[in-house]
Amino acid sequence: MTAPLRIALAGLGTVGAGVIRLLEANGDIIAARAGRALQVVAVCARDRTKDRGIDLSPYAWEDDMTALAARDDVDAVVELVGGSDGPALALARNALNSGKQVVTANKAMIAHHGMELAALAEGKGVALKYEAAVAGGIPVIKGLGEGAAANRIDGIYGILNGTCNYILSQMESTGADFGDVLKDAQDLGYAEADPAFDIEGVDAAHKLAILAALAFGTQLDFAAVDISGITKIRAADIAQADALGYVIRLIGVADCEDKGGERFLFQRVQPYLVSKQHPLASVDGPTNAVVAECNFAGRLLFEGAGAGDGPTASAVVADLIDIARDRVAPPFSLPVSALQSAAPADPGHRVSRAYMRFVVADRPGVLAEITAAMRDAGVSIESMIQHGHPEEGGDVLVAIVSHEGPESAVSAALDLLDGSPSLSEPPLVMRLLG
Amino acid sequence: MTAPLRIALAGLGTVGAGVIRLLEANGDIIAARAGRALQVVAVCARDRTKDRGIDLSPYAWEDDMTALAARDDVDAVVELVGGSDGPALALARNALNSGKQVVTANKAMIAHHGMELAALAEGKGVALKYEAAVAGGIPVIKGLGEGAAANRIDGIYGILNGTCNYILSQMESTGADFGDVLKDAQDLGYAEADPAFDIEGVDAAHKLAILAALAFGTQLDFAAVDISGITKIRAADIAQADALGYVIRLIGVADCEDKGGERFLFQRVQPYLVSKQHPLASVDGPTNAVVAECNFAGRLLFEGAGAGDGPTASAVVADLIDIARDRVAPPFSLPVSALQSAAPADPGHRVSRAYMRFVVADRPGVLAEITAAMRDAGVSIESMIQHGHPEEGGDVLVAIVSHEGPESAVSAALDLLDGSPSLSEPPLVMRLLG
Repeated sequence: MTAPLRIALAGLGTVGAGVIRLLEANGDIIAARAGRALQVVAVCARDRTKDRGIDLSPYAWEDDMTALAARDDVDAVVELVGGSDGPALALARNALNSGKQVVTANKAMIAHHGMELAALAEGKGVALKYEAAVAGGIPVIKGLGEGAAANRIDGIYGILNGTCNYILSQMESTGADFGDVLKDAQDLGYAEADPAFDIEGVDAAHKLAILAALAFGTQLDFAAVDISGITKIRAADIAQADALGYVIRLIGVADCEDKGGERFLFQRVQPYLVSKQHPLASVDGPTNAVVAECNFAGRLLFEGAGAGDGPTASAVVADLIDIARDRVAPPFSLPVSALQSAAPADPGHRVSRAYMRFVVADRPGVLAEITAAMRDAGVSIESMIQHGHPEEGGDVLVAIVSHEGPESAVSAALDLLDGSPSLSEPPLVMRLLG
Repeated sequence: MTAPLRIALAGLGTVGAGVIRLLEANGDIIAARAGRALQVVAVCARDRTKDRGIDLSPYAWEDDMTALAARDDVDAVVELVGGSDGPALALARNALNSGKQVVTANKAMIAHHGMELAALAEGKGVALKYEAAVAGGIPVIKGLGEGAAANRIDGIYGILNGTCNYILSQMESTGADFGDVLKDAQDLGYAEADPAFDIEGVDAAHKLAILAALAFGTQLDFAAVDISGITKIRAADIAQADALGYVIRLIGVADCEDKGGERFLFQRVQPYLVSKQHPLASVDGPTNAVVAECNFAGRLLFEGAGAGDGPTASAVVADLIDIARDRVAPPFSLPVSALQSAAPADPGHRVSRAYMRFVVADRPGVLAEITAAMRDAGVSIESMIQHGHPEEGGDVLVAIVSHEGPESAVSAALDLLDGSPSLSEPPLVMRLLG
């Protein structure tokens, strides 16, 4: 057996501590599968004195991450600091520049700086691995980048944020409203004290942009993701979806179209109404799932725990095992120089069924106004439900489901209604899946 | 870019032709992901003149597979001949002995000779890869052996045979009986002319034994798989399961227990009643799905097309890309020398709910006899249904669902009824999942 893979670990939060616990618990089998031992030699975190429930005495302590990346006795640096820029990015750059292998769970950093860091890793002939950055313990980066490597992938979609999925599942099973469920989720540790990145869809968008680059062989373009969160969803929407045979899930969708030699990349994170017959409808709680449509393998689905210290540590250590086995390849499967640029796709010509929910004043003529706008924009109405009981303030909810039609028609209808005094708040639009 | 990976292809059936079509269709992206071109240089099949819809003129033709394995201009041999022994095994041995990398889709050969071939590959320092042998296009060998490599895997189960799953799904949706659906499946190409390996559960057992060795780090033990097929399932069973909230699926289940330092391996292929709430219940048609219970990653699920030329070719070429990238590791993740021997586990103490279906004479006293046997063996009955209408010959069906209890009690009850003149045929037992 060859020499151990010597590891430096930056960041000792729940995931960092989880990596140490995992290496202790499964060390023997990991060494056998890696062909050599995985040995943490040095660690770095903000607070040396904090009790993390693990014994740090076997490891050298560094107060300074730059020093960690420069250590001669380190082969691979694991970045678990977090944040798209700042210390995490400096550490990754330093480590790669020093010729160290890098493993990270940092989706924000990869979504924003993945191209630069991948190019750096390729130039140095080292690995930059980020399995833990997308969908927690699910080996979806490996699944798409290696398992499906023989395929042209035409589209991907999935449930990429466990917090949102937990909240939506809870709203579904309890009938409670968003705010109450969010508070419970925070108390239970399923949502952060500052949940904005999760509930606004940004975290899912980071993951979607990474998956899109990997799957389609295009350059990362996080800025082009069309993002909506789940904060506007009411208990009434969930009930309405249920009556129609659907559940509501926050879905990331991406596909890539070739038109006249140019590539167009569509990336969207949005709540969708998912048919109860669709495999994603049964994905409950903090679970994640990713579907890839492959031109030879067909539809592949990967499902599992989307977060948590154990699953995330599992993904980090899988990356380290690959490094111990010298499995070094371009981080995005293709060399960065081969990743194509793709313009953001215009979603207007996409065809879907839409759920539109309006909060309107309970007075005559409002329905006529809404339906006239639909008619004038060419939106064909499949069903319309007005909830009988006015809400506080005398507002009522009106939900419309359209027949299949271009998204541009729905947008045009909503533009016609924009600013109408009949609407008490902006309408909520969700597409139907399955 | 380095020199092409030079490939010899033995077997030009649907999968072999699929590999050639795939390499032609996606050659550019494959070369970019593999770091070099994948180039077929020689092929071998029984009939040179057969029209396969592909142009074979670019490739050298060998009539003799031994000559194929010996060619100096070949780096990797793809075995798509099939059969556990005979020419396929001879080819694999020859190729490995000549220091060639080997890729195969042959589950029977790996299930029977995987240990010998893996040891040979390890001794020669070459790859033996078999992603296509299990679950078609789903990258589950990679997912378990690499993606979940940091975990102790405690159990695996799944739908491993697309033909059976198609037949059971069709029986479910049409209400037809087994024989009729099998005939349709044969006409449609979803079942072989000789379907025994599929419908008797042998094919699923091959795959289960391979997955068990990979997941648990134990030696392959195909002979110890407890196998039942789907031929005894009647439309009435499907209807009964449906009324109870279940669907019927052929499930492979394996787990590994440590007791006093010894390991015990449980492997079973059997039709199960799967709760409609369980993720496997929505796996319809020729789809496969594999679930792994990991000690850190939690539950992982992989789902996709379990057979067909495109998906199988996708898996074969993924293996070739790994070889082109020099990703050579022990075929069963651990070196063969590290795979532990495990005794077959005694299923008697396993606790489950059981569905037992009897075909009985329609006369007084039969139900009393059956329920007395249950009582005497300690099987607690949760529900019992006697179908009202006698079948041809005056038989009626009686279905019993037990409360949770040890399998040994169910076996004891059936032993008590063995040989009873009241039973027109041996009872059918299925366990409940979820």
